Amino acid sequence: MSFSKFFSNRHLNIAPYDTAGEHLELERFIKLNTNESPFAPSPKAIKYAARAAENLNLYSDPDCTELIAKLAETLGVKPENILCGNGSDEILNFIFAAFCDDERGAAFPDITYSFYKVLANFHNINYATPELDKDFKINLDDYINNSRTSFIVNPNAPTGLFIKLDEIERLLKSNLNNIVVIDEAYIDFGAESAVKLINKYENLIVVQTFSKSRSLAGGRLGFAVANSNLINDLRAVKNSLAPYNINSMTQAAAIGALEDEKYFEDNINSIIQAREFTAESLRALNFKVLNSLGNFLFAEHERISGVKLFEELNQRKILVRHFSKPERINNFIRITIGKLDDMKALIENIREILNA
Amino acid sequence: MSFSKFFSNRHLNIAPYDTAGEHLELERFIKLNTNESPFAPSPKAIKYAARAAENLNLYSDPDCTELIAKLAETLGVKPENILCGNGSDEILNFIFAAFCDDERGAAFPDITYSFYKVLANFHNINYATPELDKDFKINLDDYINNSRTSFIVNPNAPTGLFIKLDEIERLLKSNLNNIVVIDEAYIDFGAESAVKLINKYENLIVVQTFSKSRSLAGGRLGFAVANSNLINDLRAVKNSLAPYNINSMTQAAAIGALEDEKYFEDNINSIIQAREFTAESLRALNFKVLNSLGNFLFAEHERISGVKLFEELNQRKILVRHFSKPERINNFIRITIGKLDDMKALIENIREILNA
Repeated sequence: MSFSKFFSNRHLNIAPYDTAGEHLELERFIKLNTNESPFAPSPKAIKYAARAAENLNLYSDPDCTELIAKLAETLGVKPENILCGNGSDEILNFIFAAFCDDERGAAFPDITYSFYKVLANFHNINYATPELDKDFKINLDDYINNSRTSFIVNPNAPTGLFIKLDEIERLLKSNLNNIVVIDEAYIDFGAESAVKLINKYENLIVVQTFSKSRSLAGGRLGFAVANSNLINDLRAVKNSLAPYNINSMTQAAAIGALEDEKYFEDNINSIIQAREFTAESLRALNFKVLNSLGNFLFAEHERISGVKLFEELNQRKILVRHFSKPERINNFIRITIGKLDDMKALIENIREILNA
Repeated sequence: MSFSKFFSNRHLNIAPYDTAGEHLELERFIKLNTNESPFAPSPKAIKYAARAAENLNLYSDPDCTELIAKLAETLGVKPENILCGNGSDEILNFIFAAFCDDERGAAFPDITYSFYKVLANFHNINYATPELDKDFKINLDDYINNSRTSFIVNPNAPTGLFIKLDEIERLLKSNLNNIVVIDEAYIDFGAESAVKLINKYENLIVVQTFSKSRSLAGGRLGFAVANSNLINDLRAVKNSLAPYNINSMTQAAAIGALEDEKYFEDNINSIIQAREFTAESLRALNFKVLNSLGNFLFAEHERISGVKLFEELNQRKILVRHFSKPERINNFIRITIGKLDDMKALIENIREILNA
């Protein structure tokens, strides 16, 4: 990157996150590329947000008091166990600031959410990126006693593979002097959350988001769940960087989403059903499909390259995600699970592409 | 502060911003303590935000394309000259990251927006805080050739005093190797913006906000205006920390606010009128009132202490702001300008307090 002559010498090695290609004008596209929910927010979320808009001349609650109370009730924890962020990206930034330093680096898989690397570079944090094994699984032994702050996306992206909680506990027990972050962005689509472990392990931080299962990606809301000591640390960072980080409309929308448990569960069930339909259909077409518990599938075909399939689908107005790097995954495509009809259209189009 | 044993040794000296006492449940209070607008957002802003809420399942535009186009048109600059932040607080954080380092510290007045000190502490940036002069003016000579990144709130808070642009230009010319930040949170209430200078000085960054004159404090939106090289630097930081920093509803609300120029101007005029009424009335009661061009007044009375007046008003359900430190200003109160009727009620109550 090139910078102006004024740029800080502390940050000359940053490698900003590239959103290009993710956000496009997409009228008439079937958009299966960014793991968004295909379902609009709960009507309650929309209504509460619209009402909050009327009072935007007043500052938002810097402590998200009402939202955190509702969230604590939903999760079965106390308000002191939660901190909200402007998307889980902000929570991750707070975690890098609070729990990494020159002595304590970071560790995360070579294939996972790419923003960890961006943050590690920004904070000048040394990081290790152990390789996924040949089946694309995280090898937890790489993180045992590692003296680093570990970041484990569970289920991992873009693989969708889930690590069971007893394995996570083994990791926690072996890192008593380091933080273990379990990033559960995709936890609600059939996997089991580590939230129940926060009072058992003083080194555990669970990160979740309203972007996927709660249909609020555009509202930007993530949160950390941990014991109150760690939340206090994170809050000190938050109040040093962004005291009023969550706008009023998003706080209100999130409360509405939490109040509408049935809508949430119906959407989850629809996505799981559509995921299983899509996985089966792809396998019937001779795709290798990883066993995803997320709202996406990671799949490859021996007869057509990932980039070719991506481009062919793109021409047919279906957008999926292709990763050119690392090489091990460049034959895969990642398919966000949309509504069942969209997935049927996807399968039909793939069938045509394979038969062409 | 005390931290958990996991806390980063880089940030042990942070001193988080304290929002306590600013945000309270305030039914039936006249709230004149946080420089909010007394006017609801433009109906267009509310309508656009509500519409955006319906599509929150999709990510917000990370580049704020439509908003920045409209803002550029309003300000008479190009889109490449603007970067948006989650409140101007986030813009200030980006500036500290981008333009301060071990060689280049920061400078800002001893009495000004208190968040600069919080950010400087967080980033471990050495900072100088030249004292305001005996009339509470910023002495620009303290910032001439200072080899630091200067932060000048103009009009300053909590004084409301404005520095004319020819003086600002003198500062810019003497700091060709350092950034000068002109923080114009309160520029719209009768002062002249430095935005017109951004292409004349490669070292100038102007910061503004939608929180005051645009009635969107709860939406969290601020922005930087500068030449495109500096904006590119700031964008690199933004995309390293918070690629999707502005939620969709706030982007939409801001576009609505910008489209409703008449509403904006009417509100500005009402606030200026109420400010002048309040200043005259306070002076008639023997207050010393600084010549504010902000949406607030800074005033003291020789017969009643600042804290006493704050408390008496509080009992009468009128909330103003009192600063116990530094000592030089602890006899003052800062009064946000509300609607004219509220200011009349304030004056009546102060009259009664003084006569009691």
